[in-house]
Amino acid sequence: MSRTLGELSVLLQARLVGDPAIEIDSIASIASAQPGDLIFIDDPRRLTEAEASQASAILAAEFATTSSKPLLIAAHPRQAFARAANWLTEAASPSPSIHSTAIIHATAQLDPTVTVEEGAIIRSNVHIAANTTIGAGSVLGPNVTIGRDCHIYPSVTIYPGTTLGDRVILHAGAVLGSDGFGYVRDTATGRYERFPQIGRLVLEDDVEIGANSTIDRGALDETRICRGTKIDNLVHIGHNVKIGEDVVIAAQTGLSGSSTVGNQVIIGGQVGIADHVRIEEGAILGAQSGIPSKKVIRGKGIVFWGTPARPIKDYLKDLATLARLSKEK
Amino acid sequence: MSRTLGELSVLLQARLVGDPAIEIDSIASIASAQPGDLIFIDDPRRLTEAEASQASAILAAEFATTSSKPLLIAAHPRQAFARAANWLTEAASPSPSIHSTAIIHATAQLDPTVTVEEGAIIRSNVHIAANTTIGAGSVLGPNVTIGRDCHIYPSVTIYPGTTLGDRVILHAGAVLGSDGFGYVRDTATGRYERFPQIGRLVLEDDVEIGANSTIDRGALDETRICRGTKIDNLVHIGHNVKIGEDVVIAAQTGLSGSSTVGNQVIIGGQVGIADHVRIEEGAILGAQSGIPSKKVIRGKGIVFWGTPARPIKDYLKDLATLARLSKEK
Amino acid sequence: MSRTLGELSVLLQARLVGDPAIEIDSIASIASAQPGDLIFIDDPRRLTEAEASQASAILAAEFATTSSKPLLIAAHPRQAFARAANWLTEAASPSPSIHSTAIIHATAQLDPTVTVEEGAIIRSNVHIAANTTIGAGSVLGPNVTIGRDCHIYPSVTIYPGTTLGDRVILHAGAVLGSDGFGYVRDTATGRYERFPQIGRLVLEDDVEIGANSTIDRGALDETRICRGTKIDNLVHIGHNVKIGEDVVIAAQTGLSGSSTVGNQVIIGGQVGIADHVRIEEGAILGAQSGIPSKKVIRGKGIVFWGTPARPIKDYLKDLATLARLSKEK
Repeated sequence: MSRTLGELSVLLQARLVGDPAIEIDSIASIASAQPGDLIFIDDPRRLTEAEASQASAILAAEFATTSSKPLLIAAHPRQAFARAANWLTEAASPSPSIHSTAIIHATAQLDPTVTVEEGAIIRSNVHIAANTTIGAGSVLGPNVTIGRDCHIYPSVTIYPGTTLGDRVILHAGAVLGSDGFGYVRDTATGRYERFPQIGRLVLEDDVEIGANSTIDRGALDETRICRGTKIDNLVHIGHNVKIGEDVVIAAQTGLSGSSTVGNQVIIGGQVGIADHVRIEEGAILGAQSGIPSKKVIRGKGIVFWGTPARPIKDYLKDLATLARLSKEK
Repeated sequence: MSRTLGELSVLLQARLVGDPAIEIDSIASIASAQPGDLIFIDDPRRLTEAEASQASAILAAEFATTSSKPLLIAAHPRQAFARAANWLTEAASPSPSIHSTAIIHATAQLDPTVTVEEGAIIRSNVHIAANTTIGAGSVLGPNVTIGRDCHIYPSVTIYPGTTLGDRVILHAGAVLGSDGFGYVRDTATGRYERFPQIGRLVLEDDVEIGANSTIDRGALDETRICRGTKIDNLVHIGHNVKIGEDVVIAAQTGLSGSSTVGNQVIIGGQVGIADHVRIEEGAILGAQSGIPSKKVIRGKGIVFWGTPARPIKDYLKDLATLARLSKEK
Repeated sequence: MSRTLGELSVLLQARLVGDPAIEIDSIASIASAQPGDLIFIDDPRRLTEAEASQASAILAAEFATTSSKPLLIAAHPRQAFARAANWLTEAASPSPSIHSTAIIHATAQLDPTVTVEEGAIIRSNVHIAANTTIGAGSVLGPNVTIGRDCHIYPSVTIYPGTTLGDRVILHAGAVLGSDGFGYVRDTATGRYERFPQIGRLVLEDDVEIGANSTIDRGALDETRICRGTKIDNLVHIGHNVKIGEDVVIAAQTGLSGSSTVGNQVIIGGQVGIADHVRIEEGAILGAQSGIPSKKVIRGKGIVFWGTPARPIKDYLKDLATLARLSKEK
C-alpha cells in the first residue's frame, strides 16, 4: 500500500525536506527506481547519482540537507529504508485460505487466519497460530507447533515434535528436526547401529532459516536456536546444538553435535565447527575457519580465522611469515 | 511397546540387579527422564546424577554394581541402550496403507505391506519390497527398485533406475541418482556440452543418507554405496564414485567423480575429495581436509588432516613450526 | 531412436571404417556395452579392451585406423560421443501433457507443447515456452518466466519473478530466487531486521543447476547467471552476484553477495568466495580455496589455491617451505 512522505516521516522518525503529500508506492535501488519509489543512500558521494534517478524521494542521513528531490533525513538511513519497505509491502499479504489440495489431519488445530498452500501436509496434533503461512508441498509431522506470523516456504519438511516460535521464516527446501548422525559401533562386527534420535528441535521467535538448510533434532534432549538468530542457505546444524540469541550464520557453515554458540556471535560462510565446541558470546569466526572438537573460542568482537581457528592477527602473521620464508629460500 | 526389566535383561544379555517385573516404556536422557524410562551411563561419575533422576532403571557397565535404582549391567551400555530403544519403539510403526493422494503407476509393483504417504509419486516399473515406507511428496522415477524395511522420508527425489537394498534410510530432501557434472568443451566455441549421464546408482543394505544430501548416478556405469555406510546431511557424492562398507561420512563433505573409498573409512565434516582419489581401507580424514586429484590415502587407523591432507602429526608439526617462526621474527 | 553407422558418420563428421548399415541403438561404457551400443576411446591403449567388448562400433581418434570392429574416426571422440548420445536419445522424450493433479493458475500461459508432471504448482502470470518440462511437485511462483526446451526436475522451488532462458536444466531440489541474507542491525537493541530482498534472478540460456543448489535473488536489483554456465550440486549463490558466460562451478562452492565472476572462469568444489569479490575472466580456482572480501583475482588460465587464494605455484612453494622447516627443527 502507498504512503505519503508525511506519513513515512512520522513512521520512520525522519525529518522531511519536501512536500508531505507526495505518494510513495515502493522502494527500489537507484538504478532501477521509477516514479513512486523511495531510494536510500548512506554515502554522500552517491547523492548526485540518486538525484539523477527516477525516484520520487531519497532517504539519507544528515549529510544531505538540500537536494533537487524530496529528502527524508534519518539517523540510520539503511535501517529506516528497511522499515519503510516493510510498511509499504504490508498490505500485500493475501487473505488467509486453506487450499483444497492441502491435507490436514482432523486433530490439527489451525487459527482461522492461517494460510495453507497447495498440497501442504499437516499431520496429527499440529498447532499453528495466527497469520502463519504454510507453503506448497511442505510437510509438518505430528505434534509440530508453529507460532504466529511465521512464513514457511514451499517444500519444507518438519519432523515430528518440532516447535517454532513467532515470526519464524523457513525458506524453501529446509529440513527441520531430522535425525542426528549418531551410531554405536558393534564391537564384534564393526558395523554401525543407530543410536536413538528421539529428542526435539526448538526454534525461538524471529529465527530465519535459509533455503535447503538442515537442522537435526536432539538425540535424547533438544536442539535449540534462540531468539532472533539468522541462518543462511545450506547450513547444517547437528543434534543437541544450542545457538544463542541474535547470532548470524552465513551459508554452508556446519556445526557438529553438542556444540554451543553464545549470543551475538557472527559466523562466516563455510565455517566448520566440530562436536562439543563452545563459541562464547560476541566472537566472530571468519569464513572457512575450522574449530576442532571440544575447543572453546572466547573474545567479544575478536575475529578468528583459519583451521584450527586463531585470532586473525596471528593467522595473518603466520601467512606473512610463511610468505617471507618462501621468498628467502 | 513396554517391556519388563526381566525381558530387557534377556534381550540385551545384561545382568539385572533389581525387580524383573518393573515395566519400561521408553528411553530418555538423565535430564529428561520420567517414571517408566530407562537411562544409561558409561561414566561412573554420572551414577549419582542418574540415581537422582526420575528414571525407573539405569543401564550401566560393570562399574555400577549397587544402586538406589534397578540396574541393567551390560558390557557395552551405549550399544545395549541403542538396542533397548529399538525394541521399545518397535510396535510404534503404523499399519501399512497407500494414501489416496499417492500417484502410483499401473506397472509399479508394491508389496502389500508397503506404506505410501500423501502425494508420493511412484512411476513405471518401480519395485518396492515389504514393510518399506515412501514419504509424503517423494518422487520415485521409472525402474527404481527399493528393498524391504526401508524408510524414505518426505520430499526425496530418486532418479530413474536407482536401486536400494534393504533397511535403507533416506532423510528428507535427499536427491539420489541425479545427473553427474560432466561436460565436453567444444574446441571451437569454448562452450560446454553435456557428456552423457546415463549410468545408475546403487545403495546396498543398511545405508543411511542424511537430509538434503545429493548422490549422482554414474556417467556410463554406476555409483555405488556399499553395505552399512552412513552419510550425514548435505553431503555430495559425484558420478562413478564407489564407497565401501561401514564407511562414515559427516556433514557437508563432497566426493568428486570416480573416487573410491575403502571399507571402514571415517570421513569428517566438510572434507573435499577431488576426482579419481583412492582412500584405502580404514583411513581417517579429519574435518575440512582436502585430497587433491588422483591421490592415494593409505593407512588403517591413521588420521589425515589439512589441504593437501597429510598425517595429522605432520600437519600439527607444520602448524607448530609456523607458530614458532612467527613468534621469533 | 536407432541410427545407422552411416548416419552417425554424417552427423558426427566422422570417418567410417566399416559397414554403414550397422544399427546403433545406444551408447555405453566399454565394460557395460551390449550389441547395438557405440563406445568411445580417447586413449590408444584401450583399443584392445574396446575390441574385446560386446559393442557394435568404436568411436576413436586418428590413432585407431584399423580394428576388428567398425570404427568412427573423429577429431574429438569424446565430444562426438556426447553428440551421438544426444541423437540416439532424442526420440525418447514423451509427448507433452499436463497431469491432472498439477495446479495451474488461470493466468499462467503455457505453450501447448509444455509437459507438467504430477502435483506441480504454477502460479499467476507464469509464462512457459515450448517443449519445457516442469517436474513433479515443483513450485513456480507468480511472474516466473521459463524459456523453451527447459527441464525442471522434481521438487524445485522457484520464487516469484525469476526468469529462465532456453534450454535451462534445474536438478531436483534446487531453490531459485530465494531471499538473500541481508539484515540491518538495530543500533539500540542489537537485534537484526530484514533488509528488503525484492530483486530478481535471471538465468540465461543453457544454464544448468545441480541438485539442491540455492540461488538467491537480488536485494533490490538482480542476480544473474549468464549463458552456458554450469553449476554443480549444493552450490550457494548469494544476492546480487553476477556470473559470466561458460563458467563452471563444482559442488558445494559458495559465493557471497555482490561478487562477480568473469566469462570462462573455472571454480573447483568447496570454494568460498566472500562478498564484493571480482574473479576476472578465465581464472581457475582450485578446490577449497577462499577469496576474502573485496579481493580481485586476475589471470587467464592461472590456477589459484589456498585461503587466502594465491597462484598455485606460490601456494605449493609455501607448503614445501613449511615442510622443510618442520623437518629441520
